[in-house]
Amino acid sequence: MIRIFAVTDDLELIKDIPMDRLSDPNIKWYWVDFDSPAEEEAKLLKTYFNFHPLAIEDCLHFLQRPKLDHYEGYDFFVLHTLNQSSLMPEEVDVFVGHNFIVTFHLTSSVEIGFIQQRLLEDRTILSKGAKYIYYLIMDKIVDGFFPSVYQMEDELNEIEAKDADQNLIEDVYEIRKKLLRLRRTIFPMRELLYRILNSENLIIPKEERIYFMDIYDHLLKLSEMIESNREMTADIRDSYLSINSDRMNTIMKTLTVMTSVFVPLTFIASIYGMNFEYMPELTWHLGYFGVLTVMLVVGSIMLIGLWIKGWFK
Amino acid sequence: MIRIFAVTDDLELIKDIPMDRLSDPNIKWYWVDFDSPAEEEAKLLKTYFNFHPLAIEDCLHFLQRPKLDHYEGYDFFVLHTLNQSSLMPEEVDVFVGHNFIVTFHLTSSVEIGFIQQRLLEDRTILSKGAKYIYYLIMDKIVDGFFPSVYQMEDELNEIEAKDADQNLIEDVYEIRKKLLRLRRTIFPMRELLYRILNSENLIIPKEERIYFMDIYDHLLKLSEMIESNREMTADIRDSYLSINSDRMNTIMKTLTVMTSVFVPLTFIASIYGMNFEYMPELTWHLGYFGVLTVMLVVGSIMLIGLWIKGWFK
Amino acid sequence: MIRIFAVTDDLELIKDIPMDRLSDPNIKWYWVDFDSPAEEEAKLLKTYFNFHPLAIEDCLHFLQRPKLDHYEGYDFFVLHTLNQSSLMPEEVDVFVGHNFIVTFHLTSSVEIGFIQQRLLEDRTILSKGAKYIYYLIMDKIVDGFFPSVYQMEDELNEIEAKDADQNLIEDVYEIRKKLLRLRRTIFPMRELLYRILNSENLIIPKEERIYFMDIYDHLLKLSEMIESNREMTADIRDSYLSINSDRMNTIMKTLTVMTSVFVPLTFIASIYGMNFEYMPELTWHLGYFGVLTVMLVVGSIMLIGLWIKGWFK
Amino acid sequence: MIRIFAVTDDLELIKDIPMDRLSDPNIKWYWVDFDSPAEEEAKLLKTYFNFHPLAIEDCLHFLQRPKLDHYEGYDFFVLHTLNQSSLMPEEVDVFVGHNFIVTFHLTSSVEIGFIQQRLLEDRTILSKGAKYIYYLIMDKIVDGFFPSVYQMEDELNEIEAKDADQNLIEDVYEIRKKLLRLRRTIFPMRELLYRILNSENLIIPKEERIYFMDIYDHLLKLSEMIESNREMTADIRDSYLSINSDRMNTIMKTLTVMTSVFVPLTFIASIYGMNFEYMPELTWHLGYFGVLTVMLVVGSIMLIGLWIKGWFK
Amino acid sequence: MIRIFAVTDDLELIKDIPMDRLSDPNIKWYWVDFDSPAEEEAKLLKTYFNFHPLAIEDCLHFLQRPKLDHYEGYDFFVLHTLNQSSLMPEEVDVFVGHNFIVTFHLTSSVEIGFIQQRLLEDRTILSKGAKYIYYLIMDKIVDGFFPSVYQMEDELNEIEAKDADQNLIEDVYEIRKKLLRLRRTIFPMRELLYRILNSENLIIPKEERIYFMDIYDHLLKLSEMIESNREMTADIRDSYLSINSDRMNTIMKTLTVMTSVFVPLTFIASIYGMNFEYMPELTWHLGYFGVLTVMLVVGSIMLIGLWIKGWFK
Ligand SMILES: [Mg+2]
Ligand SMILES: [Mg+2]
Ligand SMILES: [Mg+2]
Ligand SMILES: [Mg+2]
Ligand SMILES: [Mg+2]
Ligand SMILES: [Mg+2]
Ligand SMILES: [Mg+2]
Ligand SMILES: [Mg+2]
Ligand SMILES: [Mg+2]
Ligand SMILES: [Mg+2]
Ligand SMILES: [Mg+2]
Ligand SMILES: [Mg+2]
Ligand SMILES: [Mg+2]
Ligand SMILES: [Mg+2]
Ligand SMILES: [Mg+2]
Ligand SMILES: [Mg+2]
Ligand SMILES: [Mg+2]
Ligand SMILES: [Mg+2]
Ligand SMILES: [Mg+2]
Ligand SMILES: [Mg+2]
Ligand SMILES: [Mg+2]
Ligand SMILES: [Mg+2]
Ligand SMILES: [Mg+2]
Ligand SMILES: [Mg+2]
Ligand SMILES: [Mg+2]
Ligand SMILES: [Mg+2]
Ligand SMILES: [Mg+2]
Ligand SMILES: [Mg+2]
Ligand SMILES: [Mg+2]
Ligand SMILES: [Mg+2]
Ligand SMILES: [Mg+2]
Repeated sequence: MIRIFAVTDDLELIKDIPMDRLSDPNIKWYWVDFDSPAEEEAKLLKTYFNFHPLAIEDCLHFLQRPKLDHYEGYDFFVLHTLNQSSLMPEEVDVFVGHNFIVTFHLTSSVEIGFIQQRLLEDRTILSKGAKYIYYLIMDKIVDGFFPSVYQMEDELNEIEAKDADQNLIEDVYEIRKKLLRLRRTIFPMRELLYRILNSENLIIPKEERIYFMDIYDHLLKLSEMIESNREMTADIRDSYLSINSDRMNTIMKTLTVMTSVFVPLTFIASIYGMNFEYMPELTWHLGYFGVLTVMLVVGSIMLIGLWIKGWFK
Repeated sequence: MIRIFAVTDDLELIKDIPMDRLSDPNIKWYWVDFDSPAEEEAKLLKTYFNFHPLAIEDCLHFLQRPKLDHYEGYDFFVLHTLNQSSLMPEEVDVFVGHNFIVTFHLTSSVEIGFIQQRLLEDRTILSKGAKYIYYLIMDKIVDGFFPSVYQMEDELNEIEAKDADQNLIEDVYEIRKKLLRLRRTIFPMRELLYRILNSENLIIPKEERIYFMDIYDHLLKLSEMIESNREMTADIRDSYLSINSDRMNTIMKTLTVMTSVFVPLTFIASIYGMNFEYMPELTWHLGYFGVLTVMLVVGSIMLIGLWIKGWFK
Repeated sequence: MIRIFAVTDDLELIKDIPMDRLSDPNIKWYWVDFDSPAEEEAKLLKTYFNFHPLAIEDCLHFLQRPKLDHYEGYDFFVLHTLNQSSLMPEEVDVFVGHNFIVTFHLTSSVEIGFIQQRLLEDRTILSKGAKYIYYLIMDKIVDGFFPSVYQMEDELNEIEAKDADQNLIEDVYEIRKKLLRLRRTIFPMRELLYRILNSENLIIPKEERIYFMDIYDHLLKLSEMIESNREMTADIRDSYLSINSDRMNTIMKTLTVMTSVFVPLTFIASIYGMNFEYMPELTWHLGYFGVLTVMLVVGSIMLIGLWIKGWFK
Repeated sequence: MIRIFAVTDDLELIKDIPMDRLSDPNIKWYWVDFDSPAEEEAKLLKTYFNFHPLAIEDCLHFLQRPKLDHYEGYDFFVLHTLNQSSLMPEEVDVFVGHNFIVTFHLTSSVEIGFIQQRLLEDRTILSKGAKYIYYLIMDKIVDGFFPSVYQMEDELNEIEAKDADQNLIEDVYEIRKKLLRLRRTIFPMRELLYRILNSENLIIPKEERIYFMDIYDHLLKLSEMIESNREMTADIRDSYLSINSDRMNTIMKTLTVMTSVFVPLTFIASIYGMNFEYMPELTWHLGYFGVLTVMLVVGSIMLIGLWIKGWFK
Repeated sequence: MIRIFAVTDDLELIKDIPMDRLSDPNIKWYWVDFDSPAEEEAKLLKTYFNFHPLAIEDCLHFLQRPKLDHYEGYDFFVLHTLNQSSLMPEEVDVFVGHNFIVTFHLTSSVEIGFIQQRLLEDRTILSKGAKYIYYLIMDKIVDGFFPSVYQMEDELNEIEAKDADQNLIEDVYEIRKKLLRLRRTIFPMRELLYRILNSENLIIPKEERIYFMDIYDHLLKLSEMIESNREMTADIRDSYLSINSDRMNTIMKTLTVMTSVFVPLTFIASIYGMNFEYMPELTWHLGYFGVLTVMLVVGSIMLIGLWIKGWFK
């Protein structure tokens, strides 16, 4: 579907006019949005706008890295939005010329829809031109990264708060995986903003620059939160491993103490359970109590020995 | 609450004058401090001072990264102070113009209060102007980082000094977590100072530069202490894991020796405990002593075998 | 085998003409491809083309790093293609002059073959000259990296989907090894493209530059996928280790509970299995049931003790 | 204590002259050394030399990072010497002007003492001026780092040579800790030398530069040794962990084999140790030998089974 | 021993002429090689050549880092060759002036000997001058690094090919140690080549530059092989640890199953092995078979319980 917004010299907004009227002299600037376009519609990138084949290829083919290319007469941006449920990136392509903006996305985009709604409601935007639309889209996309990153922080805090149980490692692993996914979207976007702010070819006027720096600030903060949380998860995991090894020590000590004490005693008892005809001790009057005393002594020696070696600390 | 300090051309300090008198020609410079301001008060940022909407947004909204923005007529700084109990950052925003400083913080700040006290007591500051107030705030904030970092070093030294017990890993984990928190405040502040010292837009006169370099020195030292202590904790944890694995070896050896020696002996005894009517050995005169001898031999073989394999080292 | 493609001033393509006709004035540009050349053929690099001895050495000797050398009158490139089955690099050497391209490879190359086929079919290439052939080869080689990297992602997703079993670690190890191999080919190729785009000696016209940037984009994306997947595998492995340690804890607890409960009981039973003549308890009427009760109490105490210590959580 | 060395225009060395004679016109250059100065003496930094308050603060307060500050008329250096027993840094502060050097240290310094001794003995130094003294101090300090680093290498070689025993991990941990300490002194000193060599404000003449590069070489080599040794220790520790896990496997196999073989046999024997009145097998003539045969078979099956599963490899 | 090679203006090679004839006007260039020189001979560096004291100190004292120093009239290089058996570096020092080369090494050097042999055999070198000798030495040294690195790759492949046994970890550790040693020689040599290629003071003519770039290529490839192989060893070790932990799980499961099944059964049998006079079950006709049935049920329950919990997977 193609949505067209054109702004006249009188700052009036016209929706869905035919494409060939866009070059009318009284059109101050326009926005053409290719929203999940049909194959036929996508061909307009070539036939109507005459964009560079490499840029069109980037639109139509599989997921590109966020980037910025300078072409004669327009700049071409690949942006990544975040799919909130899968945390995987989705692509929004933007062509920005001096009096037009063309957006292209193979799946529908919440962020683009939101800006179009705002355009209809807030007429002050009309005077600011096509580049300001680009800023609004970018800003909206980056704002959309925050809920997912904050959710990761919350999940991590929950994990920390509750007692370490057997799901902890799997929970930590899931968070690490999600953080890695977020990073794959957010870091290249940060690099793109850095390039936008420092590109020699794309000189942004000083009063606009501050707006893109505001977006860059957000991306820097997001990056730091992601990295910091990944370190946090690594710390949790490493500590858990150490605590587990501590517990294992306790378990094995218990087992070894039980075994070391009772196995020799049971052996002694089993000797006097043998059925030999000639076993002199069996006939001694105090044989039984003597053996019980021996067992008491042996058991005590074992326990004292282990206690001296520090096993009960 | 809004606190106002104005300095007249005669270097007199006037407190809490009405805001509209700040533009009086005999006011040399002034400091307006928004301390946990009410919503109405915060609106003065826009209505009275006419600061840029992006800067005001940074003041009012959630925690920003420390940063420096240049606006027409003033510079805008976001600073982080350290909440001493939670070790989490708190934000202090500062606007510095040629004859004014405006500070803004949503919670009250010990550091700002300290500088205001000093302003009242030390009249030599009055001649140095608004920028010097900014330096004093910054210096005070960074000095406030040291106690927490030193405390981490002390806790780490304590952990090292005492014997490794079961709480060690949890203590180390807590210190690592706190160091990570300190890092999240201190590293971005260090980056901010670096930008202040190297920004092309914010040319600091040479004699002032040395003061900011002194703060930067402190931040460099804090950074190194944090990183070095984190490495230290990683070393402690890794060594503890190895030592634990050593202990486990000792425990399991003990268990295996006990089992290897006594299980075969008990088995032999249990054979002669069977109640078969026809068991020739039982009637032998020396059967009992023969079996005891066999047990002695078997037990000795087991012990010697394990000793040869180096299990008793 | 040597394959020769020459393009005349009339943009006609001539195949396999004798080498000495390449300097004919009506030859606009030509491509000489040394495909697994015999020793005699390889000598033509020296005798016919008079290339620099160091470049020829790089062609003939063992695997070089991808690189770019500037010689008088031509540039020399070493490229790496990926052997799809072994994932090891294979070398393609390219000499590019103003009106010629010479390719050299000791084993036959799918990519080179593909471009030759395209040259025969798509006559529009003929007008674009020798440098465009170089771009086509490079682009084809880098496109050939994607299937292997995507396959790694697929294998990793499969591993994640299925339950952790004993082959998991070996599968993860194999993937890590393959990713390391891919990295050894792809990272130096990315560095080469970076050098091509930023070399001072090799000034690429702006309209060609965009084509090489397109290849560089691909290599950046491949690099990120490889690094991200290696981190993913490290996370899987580390989590598996932790889960394994959890399982071990469960196993050892089971063992220790069984032992702690039954070993004392069996010891008690073995006492009354002894055959001493004088054992007063044996003649008591309720001796047997008394012992059973004692056993019940001892066993219950053991179980309750372990339950209190949290072993059954 | 303050030590004063003054050199006259005739290159004569005068010791311990009163401070006010230092400005005599016939004094070519002088060195004032504040060795663990009393509070009164330290005030001379302000009252006599009029050094910048920030530099004086750096002298008097706690340990600074090694650094270089340029002030009007003199450069200020903070240097770190190594306390040979604790491996902790100690601070030596140096002010260097065109005709003077002032050194300041709160504890006495072996290195400073050595250079003073050399000054008294080697009169050729007198003609080289105050800056050369600074070079000599720096060189002596860095030479003092080598013994400690070499000792670490020696200790590491010893650890490698002897058999792995239970102290190994603690020894490795101690070495890692000491290397970390050495790094905290040596790395910032290396950074300082780098700044001295590359500072724009401190232009060193070419013939002096080679001397500071010689010191920088030493610091580079020390840095590499430290990093390399830390990697070595990490390798030793990781390998030890793996070897320990191997040993544990062997121990547990032994335990499991013993248990798997004897526990079923003992169970069989215990069945025929029961005292039931009606147990037909007990009266069979070959019952006893039959059970022994069954035990032999069961034991063999267990052993063969484990052997097939590869437990005896 | 000192070896002298002088080349006359007629490109004749004269060996072992007295040193004072080296300044003869008909000597085009010469090479003086100090091969394990006696103390007296080493003094010639000062007395005859008048080299800088710092350079002479670097020759005579302990192992330096590879480096490049510019002195008036000559460049001074410290190179590292590899001792093939110990894999430790050995030092070769080189002074290169416009018409001479002086080499200095405290132990005899295979590489230097090889170049001297080539000088005698290949007269074309004579016309190329002293600098070319320097290139030949450097090239020969770096070629000498390859066999050791290839051997590491081979050893690593062997380790991978054979089954994991108990020596694996020690083999991996040995390879890691050797790779670390190789790195200590090769990385600083790579840095040196980088400095040679990019030094502002040492401007290499373009046609010579390509030769040094060829050496740099080799060093880059060697560096990548070393790093890649170290990562490979880390992967092998980490995987081995995981596999070992898997095996341990299997062993412990076996032990726990055996214990869990037989210990309760043996306990039951031991109850009826007690010798109480009044034990009613003993006189029941089906007591024996009843107990056997109970044992079968208890054993089956244990096995089924463990099977349900997934222990036999
Ligand atoms: Mg991407
Ligand atoms: Mg990334
Ligand atoms: Mg903002
Ligand atoms: Mg940052
Ligand atoms: Mg960042
Ligand atoms: Mg960490
Ligand atoms: Mg922040
Ligand atoms: Mg950070
Ligand atoms: Mg200071
Ligand atoms: Mg630093
Ligand atoms: Mg730092
Ligand atoms: Mg570490
Ligand atoms: Mg390569
Ligand atoms: Mg690489
Ligand atoms: Mg593309
Ligand atoms: Mg990237
Ligand atoms: Mg990359
Ligand atoms: Mg990781
Ligand atoms: Mg320091
Ligand atoms: Mg450091
Ligand atoms: Mg030296
Ligand atoms: Mg270095
Ligand atoms: Mg270094
Ligand atoms: Mg390592
Ligand atoms: Mg070295
Ligand atoms: Mg290195
Ligand atoms: Mg080469
Ligand atoms: Mg490289
Ligand atoms: Mg490299
Ligand atoms: Mg790795
Ligand atoms: Mg590791």
